[in-house]
Amino acid sequence: AKGVLYLIPSFLFPETHHVMPPQVVEMTGRIRHYFVENLRSARRFLKAVDRSSDIDACSFSVVSVTEPPDLALLRRWLEEGNQVGVISEAGYPCIADPGEILVREAQRLGARVIPLVGPNAMLMALAASGLNGEAFRFSGYLPVQGDARVRSLKELEKRARQTRETQIVMETPYRNNQLVADMLAHLDPATELCVAVDITAPPDYIRTRAI
Amino acid sequence: AKGVLYLIPSFLFPETHHVMPPQVVEMTGRIRHYFVENLRSARRFLKAVDRSSDIDACSFSVVSVTEPPDLALLRRWLEEGNQVGVISEAGYPCIADPGEILVREAQRLGARVIPLVGPNAMLMALAASGLNGEAFRFSGYLPVQGDARVRSLKELEKRARQTRETQIVMETPYRNNQLVADMLAHLDPATELCVAVDITAPPDYIRTRAI
Repeated sequence: AKGVLYLIPSFLFPETHHVMPPQVVEMTGRIRHYFVENLRSARRFLKAVDRSSDIDACSFSVVSVTEPPDLALLRRWLEEGNQVGVISEAGYPCIADPGEILVREAQRLGARVIPLVGPNAMLMALAASGLNGEAFRFSGYLPVQGDARVRSLKELEKRARQTRETQIVMETPYRNNQLVADMLAHLDPATELCVAVDITAPPDYIRTRAI
Repeated sequence: AKGVLYLIPSFLFPETHHVMPPQVVEMTGRIRHYFVENLRSARRFLKAVDRSSDIDACSFSVVSVTEPPDLALLRRWLEEGNQVGVISEAGYPCIADPGEILVREAQRLGARVIPLVGPNAMLMALAASGLNGEAFRFSGYLPVQGDARVRSLKELEKRARQTRETQIVMETPYRNNQLVADMLAHLDPATELCVAVDITAPPDYIRTRAI
């Protein structure tokens, strides 16, 4: 029988392990073959989920934005009938995070792909925002450069107004304040804006100023 | 101190309770005030999450598509400092499910809104699809009528091709087969389609034929 590819959600802060379902603890206790975005934090995550994990018995291969995955290794692991896990850097695999190429290769081989339940910031922020959850659009990162960034913001605003779709974007922590400043400077005061804060994060991690 | 509004994910099948994080079990054990989409299944859900739940000690108020929530009751519960839960019908509150009006009222009162980690079909289907997870769009239900439905499908296909955004739609179980048939009849054979199946569902619940 072919192996199975499991998509494993992860978190940033080990003290938040109470948000992980028993199923994740059970499966990470069994899986011995992993594709991970970051080796160090994947090991730390596995230890946080279950202190008794035998991490030295696991094989790891790196998949990241800059490093394409070793598909020959994935094929071998699956053909041998292994359960294979994908762990991205503090996020849900394949949702604005690496993993798609592995999923497509598993599908091509006829292996099952099973996503496990776990945290996703985008979804939780949308639900808690009070903004429209019947129609929404996630468009990833905005351009970094000033002019292109402002143009993108204005396009998102126009689209939100025309379609009533909630527009969701991501930003890296160290650019959050700049993004909010750009929004306040360039968007219509009537446009609704939600900034979600991860309250499980240590206080010094939350760098977005209150607005 | 003001109360807190908790958004509580739920599931269809009691035997899937191993996908619920300990935090959901802990919070549903504490919360005594609920807004629920369906009274009967919310009670069944609470019992499935924790068999020892004292459901008779809880107060319930209904919020549904056809029944607007009792906002005066929400205000009273929050002003009295209660923890208030929102449970939608087998889904994540506010994501294509009721809850937004409650969230906005809690925000207006200055009460905290806390979304709990739990299952969401759309997110998990997207991750396991192998389709683009860097940019995607959820547009809810398609029109029910034949012509309008086909036009909508073709617009989604056009948009997917122009933007590389994955297009996500929902359908009720009894219309699934018709939707897939319409897609096969009217979309380009080169357009990629993913139908996700909930493997935790009892076999007779899965009515979508293999294609």
